[in-house]
Amino acid sequence: MRQSIKLKVRYFFGFFLFVSIASFSMSNGYELWLNYTKISDEATLLKYRSTIQTVFLEGTSETQSVIKNELEMGLGGLLDTEVVFQGFNKGGNQLIVSKYNDLPQELKSSFIMDGLSKEGYKIKTIESNGASFVVVTANEDIGLLYGTYNFLRLLQTHSALENVDITEIPKVDVRVLNHWDNLDRTIERGFAGFSIWNWHTLPGYIDQRYIDYARANASVGINGTVLTNVNANALILTPQYLEKVKALAEVFRPYGIKVYLTARFSAPIEIGGLETADPLDADVIQWWKDKAKEIYTMIPDFGGFVVKANSEGQPGPQNYGRSHLDGANLMANALEPFGGLVIWRAFVYSEHDPTDRAKQAYSEFVPEDGKFMDNVLLQVKNGAIDFQPREPFHPLFGAMPKTPLMMEFQITKEYLGFATHLVFLPKLYEEVLQSDTYRKGKGSTVAKVIDGSLNNKKVSGMAGVSNVGNDINWTGHPFGQADWYGFGRLAWNPYMTAEDIADEWLRLTFSNDEKFVEPVKQMMIESREAVVNYMNPLGLHHIFDTGHHYGPGPWVGNLSRPEWNPVYYHKADSEGVGFDRTKTGSNALSQYAPEVEKMFTDLKTCPEEYLLWFHHLPWDYTLKNGRTLWDGLGLKYQEGVDEVRDMIKTWEAMKPYVDDARHHQVSMLLDIQLEEAIWWKDACMLYFQTFSKMEFPREMEKPEHTLDYYKSLKFPFAPGIRPRWD
Amino acid sequence: MRQSIKLKVRYFFGFFLFVSIASFSMSNGYELWLNYTKISDEATLLKYRSTIQTVFLEGTSETQSVIKNELEMGLGGLLDTEVVFQGFNKGGNQLIVSKYNDLPQELKSSFIMDGLSKEGYKIKTIESNGASFVVVTANEDIGLLYGTYNFLRLLQTHSALENVDITEIPKVDVRVLNHWDNLDRTIERGFAGFSIWNWHTLPGYIDQRYIDYARANASVGINGTVLTNVNANALILTPQYLEKVKALAEVFRPYGIKVYLTARFSAPIEIGGLETADPLDADVIQWWKDKAKEIYTMIPDFGGFVVKANSEGQPGPQNYGRSHLDGANLMANALEPFGGLVIWRAFVYSEHDPTDRAKQAYSEFVPEDGKFMDNVLLQVKNGAIDFQPREPFHPLFGAMPKTPLMMEFQITKEYLGFATHLVFLPKLYEEVLQSDTYRKGKGSTVAKVIDGSLNNKKVSGMAGVSNVGNDINWTGHPFGQADWYGFGRLAWNPYMTAEDIADEWLRLTFSNDEKFVEPVKQMMIESREAVVNYMNPLGLHHIFDTGHHYGPGPWVGNLSRPEWNPVYYHKADSEGVGFDRTKTGSNALSQYAPEVEKMFTDLKTCPEEYLLWFHHLPWDYTLKNGRTLWDGLGLKYQEGVDEVRDMIKTWEAMKPYVDDARHHQVSMLLDIQLEEAIWWKDACMLYFQTFSKMEFPREMEKPEHTLDYYKSLKFPFAPGIRPRWD
Repeated sequence: MRQSIKLKVRYFFGFFLFVSIASFSMSNGYELWLNYTKISDEATLLKYRSTIQTVFLEGTSETQSVIKNELEMGLGGLLDTEVVFQGFNKGGNQLIVSKYNDLPQELKSSFIMDGLSKEGYKIKTIESNGASFVVVTANEDIGLLYGTYNFLRLLQTHSALENVDITEIPKVDVRVLNHWDNLDRTIERGFAGFSIWNWHTLPGYIDQRYIDYARANASVGINGTVLTNVNANALILTPQYLEKVKALAEVFRPYGIKVYLTARFSAPIEIGGLETADPLDADVIQWWKDKAKEIYTMIPDFGGFVVKANSEGQPGPQNYGRSHLDGANLMANALEPFGGLVIWRAFVYSEHDPTDRAKQAYSEFVPEDGKFMDNVLLQVKNGAIDFQPREPFHPLFGAMPKTPLMMEFQITKEYLGFATHLVFLPKLYEEVLQSDTYRKGKGSTVAKVIDGSLNNKKVSGMAGVSNVGNDINWTGHPFGQADWYGFGRLAWNPYMTAEDIADEWLRLTFSNDEKFVEPVKQMMIESREAVVNYMNPLGLHHIFDTGHHYGPGPWVGNLSRPEWNPVYYHKADSEGVGFDRTKTGSNALSQYAPEVEKMFTDLKTCPEEYLLWFHHLPWDYTLKNGRTLWDGLGLKYQEGVDEVRDMIKTWEAMKPYVDDARHHQVSMLLDIQLEEAIWWKDACMLYFQTFSKMEFPREMEKPEHTLDYYKSLKFPFAPGIRPRWD
Repeated sequence: MRQSIKLKVRYFFGFFLFVSIASFSMSNGYELWLNYTKISDEATLLKYRSTIQTVFLEGTSETQSVIKNELEMGLGGLLDTEVVFQGFNKGGNQLIVSKYNDLPQELKSSFIMDGLSKEGYKIKTIESNGASFVVVTANEDIGLLYGTYNFLRLLQTHSALENVDITEIPKVDVRVLNHWDNLDRTIERGFAGFSIWNWHTLPGYIDQRYIDYARANASVGINGTVLTNVNANALILTPQYLEKVKALAEVFRPYGIKVYLTARFSAPIEIGGLETADPLDADVIQWWKDKAKEIYTMIPDFGGFVVKANSEGQPGPQNYGRSHLDGANLMANALEPFGGLVIWRAFVYSEHDPTDRAKQAYSEFVPEDGKFMDNVLLQVKNGAIDFQPREPFHPLFGAMPKTPLMMEFQITKEYLGFATHLVFLPKLYEEVLQSDTYRKGKGSTVAKVIDGSLNNKKVSGMAGVSNVGNDINWTGHPFGQADWYGFGRLAWNPYMTAEDIADEWLRLTFSNDEKFVEPVKQMMIESREAVVNYMNPLGLHHIFDTGHHYGPGPWVGNLSRPEWNPVYYHKADSEGVGFDRTKTGSNALSQYAPEVEKMFTDLKTCPEEYLLWFHHLPWDYTLKNGRTLWDGLGLKYQEGVDEVRDMIKTWEAMKPYVDDARHHQVSMLLDIQLEEAIWWKDACMLYFQTFSKMEFPREMEKPEHTLDYYKSLKFPFAPGIRPRWD
């Protein structure tokens, strides 16, 4: 069999004069972490070649054919050798990829398959009669595919194959990306180009990207994709579009990926010709039943509906005096016969509700706990506001023991510097997942809520709002790929550490050289605190410029909806700054377990990173370091700026280990990040100074421009806002 | 010196099971025609290696550094060898790239440089004292760069190097792409993704695409790029955006590419704070002068302004009772001190003008001939309507002997099936350029008008509305690259044949194998007639569906502006069909030279492909083949469909010669093309049948659906329409 890897000349220049002697493969980043270039370490390479001389792959299903292709590319590339597929070879030195039932009898005894779910797998080195095998096995095809990717990852990370003994079972059932992609290919909060879904040329034209997207997702265990924006367009549910969805579903199926769609609540009116979308109306009930049947006839493994209702202008059951419960169960009832899920978003708030926006989801949903149908998941953003650089965990986590709560993380960086800032998000995800809700005593972490273990949920899920666009490298910033990767790894196992994820990703994507991995990993880990410091230190939040959320806008206070204004969130005045959410304020803290409420309420125990989230404090309030709150703010902003400078220094020193293309690319982006970090510091401190009337702390670099200058900056075409089509 | 080509694994699969034994490089198309994979023919390879053992490249300017990079990539890739740069080697077997003045003395005598303009170059094989050299020389750096690309093209096409003697001088001065790219990155009439200009991340982030875009353009001699849509936004002229434009200009400069911007006529109001944009107002005059100075301070080689005024809702001098002449000279006056050009578009028509839309540009501009400033070019679309599959040449060509008329071709396929139809446009361009205006007797071709030779113009130009987007392969359809390539080649030399262009492009892009080149070239050449047949046969025009122009819409007659309605153009009724532009009708034919008018007027001499463009004829009018007009229409539609079937057959047979990735890609697209060709045939013939009341000709395949079905089709998110941003 011929080796199926093809070599393609990558044109890149402009930096060649500085090319170092070491030989790198220049990368445009399209390959993501599925980087199968030849293993550079000669000893490792020779060892692998001798250990894996042939491959025994049993089966010819579509998924097995995908596995074969991946092994041809992966082994062929990494080992730079022809991949020889053959039958079971008793002589050993063979990679065996086979479902347990199809394993050669003499190998079966090495495995205990109990508890290995549909998607789980095992990888094990087996010595049998003096012969050596590496075996990837599972109950189902999809487990084999996951195992194959893990096996390739072992090679990519130069792991020893002598004593492999891996058992992997995903801890979360539904592991999905949410694409906020519109039918016109704009992406709400998309910063890496436009939607990879080319609806116009579907179903006839299958872009290679669709296949590579599926590979990337499957390689980290993502098993679902919500193709469309939560701010939904009902057209996606028409036959014209369902044909296109079907074509994508067929591409994704062998990779174990189900498609989901966002369902616009008013679809029965808009495309169904009904006069109402009332969830209790018999015609409406029937319409959804018929629609579900129509979809499942075309896409038998359709995942289900994701619904944003009665939030930010979207229609919903409350338009008809009904509840979210009525709405969710309406759709759940329609999907139930086909095994479909309803993923109902808890991100709801109303301008007609004068209470703290942070409190509204809890108030709305907790009373309904236990009343949802079994195929309903409630999708909850990690915090109660909106994907800020740092938020305390959402009070809903742990508060609905009878309802499966699905985590919604944002992978795209709406409030985190778009695609030009290096911010390693798994560090943020880890912080949320490790937060303790105390709902069943100490150790009731959010991770246990999400994986269902805290209350023995029947189904569990995690969603990430995708950062994927049609930029060649998918995510704009090369390090944005790490967030996609990390989301997938945490959805599979919410207990992984951000550090382990960074380590893996760096090795897969760039290099196994410790002199590269260690400092860059450190830089990634620290990058999250940096962005908090230079944007939203000490618990400040939602002080972004309007609409696009690009850059600072703490002065904005003229928007029609009060809770869309930054001034609503920081409440700065001559007395002080911060949002009082204790009993003397909005009392949002009462929505947490008593232990948590107590910790955040008491200024002595409230971590300073959440200070202004929960408290309105005077400008001269004394921080733990003895400085005033005002000084502390300035120092934190400065610290953020300095941290970006450190990142630049770290990256500069990495030149010998990274191809020039990506090194230069990241350097340019870090320079932008520094410029914008300074912008944040200057704009925010100048603005808050109009209330504090205090001098800037001496350690803080003086602002480069006036407050008026910063207020004058306008970005009418900042990416990520949805345009209107006439 | 190390060879600078890096190899990168290209992941591609899904078709590997069918991979043939022959070894291709899999391509995602990003490299365009700059395909420097190793020369497959061993004898040729060895010959080249022995002829070009070293390279003598004199000079260190930015452009020369670009040349060096290109040679490293090109020679390194094609010859699969290290590229050795060294001083002049009297021993020979050397490639010499040097300005004439810097050539070694003993080689100078081999060249006569008279008449070689700034951009021209020579490539010559020289035997000197028994040693052999291939010399690329020119007066200026940019000529050297063009010569280098031509030299590499010789290798790519496996040309013999023994007796090269090439002199190339561009026949047209201004060779520009027009990007109809909006600041939100949507592209009006863009079908290959979204704008490659990422305004948000400019100027800090220089996308590698910008560099590769410049390489591609320079390689075919394009020397200017209009970055923004002719439906202009004044913001591009603000300092915030000019900083971004400057960054692009700096990338493009070494490649000999100037940037141009579209100037919104009302900019003095919108961004200048004036109350008028009246071209005779002193403040307005000063505003444009100041703006020009501001731009040239930042971008000393700025190309100039392109202006669409008083057309399709754009503001213009007529808003103030002034003429196009006033408007053009206003800006020309501002740019003149800096050497900038005004490119004023002749594509103007008004809904308030009841005359035939085809006549309006001529009426508007001919009286102004000779009154424009010297730095004004009038940019005229190839036909008087709008980029139809076939149009007679625009009557303005030849009719303004004292004004430089610039050709405007459309490379993007607004009316030609978007990016899913294979239609080789240089065939269309060639037809236009070879059309005879008879304005100075027989042989007064449009090409001679455009290159200025017919009337000794001081400046000449050709513009192509770009089909470039951020799809990985730039143009969506792999064959769309040929249109970009061909436009560039024809702008350099408007006398090239479409066949020669197809031949070159195929060899550069795919293969030199004659068994591939010949049939595919034939397919490309015939593809243009195919699209005419299945969309707009016998002179029908503008019967496209509304707004997006995707698919047939001959029934549309409800648009507010009469000349936006297809029914305006086909005028079908029970009597017959076609637009009478003879003396009995709109008399648009009177705008041509008498010889041309006579030919088109007389039904005996009017080519049948223009029949319904100029004549309203009864359904039973007898065509040259003896069939009725009605039958003829049906047969032409059928012929178009059959031609696409032939293309599919041809392409299918090419499997052995093309990498599977692109072969499959083109196959999928051809299937879409066939489906849509049938759609056109069925929809149009069913519609016209409601007037003709005649049976379909027996040779025509019966429609698959009813007319009502075709009328019901809606494409709300068809690409290429500009969305609105709130």
